Amino acid sequence: VRVRYGETDQMGVVYHAHYLAYMDEARTALLGELGRGYAELERSGVGLVVRKVEVRYRAPARFGDELVVRVQLTRVGGASLTFDYDILRAGGTRVASGMTELACLDLHDPERRVRMLPDELRGLLAAES
Amino acid sequence: VRVRYGETDQMGVVYHAHYLAYMDEARTALLGELGRGYAELERSGVGLVVRKVEVRYRAPARFGDELVVRVQLTRVGGASLTFDYDILRAGGTRVASGMTELACLDLHDPERRVRMLPDELRGLLAAES
Amino acid sequence: VRVRYGETDQMGVVYHAHYLAYMDEARTALLGELGRGYAELERSGVGLVVRKVEVRYRAPARFGDELVVRVQLTRVGGASLTFDYDILRAGGTRVASGMTELACLDLHDPERRVRMLPDELRGLLAAES
Amino acid sequence: VRVRYGETDQMGVVYHAHYLAYMDEARTALLGELGRGYAELERSGVGLVVRKVEVRYRAPARFGDELVVRVQLTRVGGASLTFDYDILRAGGTRVASGMTELACLDLHDPERRVRMLPDELRGLLAAES
Repeated sequence: VRVRYGETDQMGVVYHAHYLAYMDEARTALLGELGRGYAELERSGVGLVVRKVEVRYRAPARFGDELVVRVQLTRVGGASLTFDYDILRAGGTRVASGMTELACLDLHDPERRVRMLPDELRGLLAAES
Repeated sequence: VRVRYGETDQMGVVYHAHYLAYMDEARTALLGELGRGYAELERSGVGLVVRKVEVRYRAPARFGDELVVRVQLTRVGGASLTFDYDILRAGGTRVASGMTELACLDLHDPERRVRMLPDELRGLLAAES
Repeated sequence: VRVRYGETDQMGVVYHAHYLAYMDEARTALLGELGRGYAELERSGVGLVVRKVEVRYRAPARFGDELVVRVQLTRVGGASLTFDYDILRAGGTRVASGMTELACLDLHDPERRVRMLPDELRGLLAAES
Repeated sequence: VRVRYGETDQMGVVYHAHYLAYMDEARTALLGELGRGYAELERSGVGLVVRKVEVRYRAPARFGDELVVRVQLTRVGGASLTFDYDILRAGGTRVASGMTELACLDLHDPERRVRMLPDELRGLLAAES
């Protein structure tokens, strides 16, 4: 990810909320590499929504920085997924680390209740975690 | 609108893209006052999407500033609406001015084609413009 | 806070990153009520930056929802502050809860090192926590 | 640019304000290719701020779309720059087009008044426009 101008705040560093979008982008890319894009997953009626997030900010990132987001699937639950993240500057400095827990929702259900992960997705993820 | 910290950029002023959200919020409030909220309009299958936007930035706005967005419906077309905006600091300085043209879409149509404004909405708006 | 259209995502609910901005806005308002605005604090050379954040999402919030953010100062450290948050819909449903830990930085220091909280701020906060 | 999840809105398309950030990113990349990054320009005391923006939205962009932003410097004024943009989907469909006019500011001036473009920058840009 390259830091955009609008992502900085008046302290001259990336505003803390934007890291959640960087983490989201990395998670999406990981799901895409596993063979099934998240957009397609949603079209099939399965949504993954963030239920919990934790971020620890370690060093500031600045406009123009090239950041690398390392993402790892750390837990596959019955109806949830947990990912860990490390955000590094190109040089190697760790800028932030975090985790997100996602719940699997049934988008065909008008109330969007939690549902089990589809077997196909579980199979793809099992190899990864 | 009160300027949020995350809306500033490293120059210490509001990043220019956020004015579009301020204008959107004012337009939504205006539609709400006319008797029908925009959320309800969408639920009935009618969407209004921005087709054109122009903004002229005149003075910077800063974190904590209280901004007033004056919005005026300037044109009711067959399938479009045009709004003008003035964004002022509480003191009266004009920070920005702009316009947006919105197209009316049929959300029940899978291709979301442009449709005429519903008569009911047109009636409500006629009194305003 | 009233949810803005641009804060929703394609699932029709508020994108999770925006809660951090809501929490920030509530924290800023609390500091303002304690007698000293955050903007003024920064001008005096003292910055508060988010070092850690946790959010637990409990129910979705939607466009047009009126959200109430309850914020409480839970800990005043030597060089840090901890806040807890509850985000509720006007009706009373709890939408999310969270915490942030802020570090106090010396903005006059070119390296922006951590510094002790200024005594004046500590005094104001002591009454609150 | 790859569209991020948080950039969509509840209509399932990219929220219109985000195009300004895409345009900004393309403009920054262009300045970088011309030999002098914008970050460095700011450090030397010269800022470029958006004074005017126009966008015409032609087709929706969706989550996961790969967008190409073509940017062209169309005018070098005494103290301003004008850029034109075309935003295309990878397939070739034109999603939006726009323009921005930027004013050159003296960041060493406490009042940040408009100043002439530095000769060095003007030289680099002359070849491009």
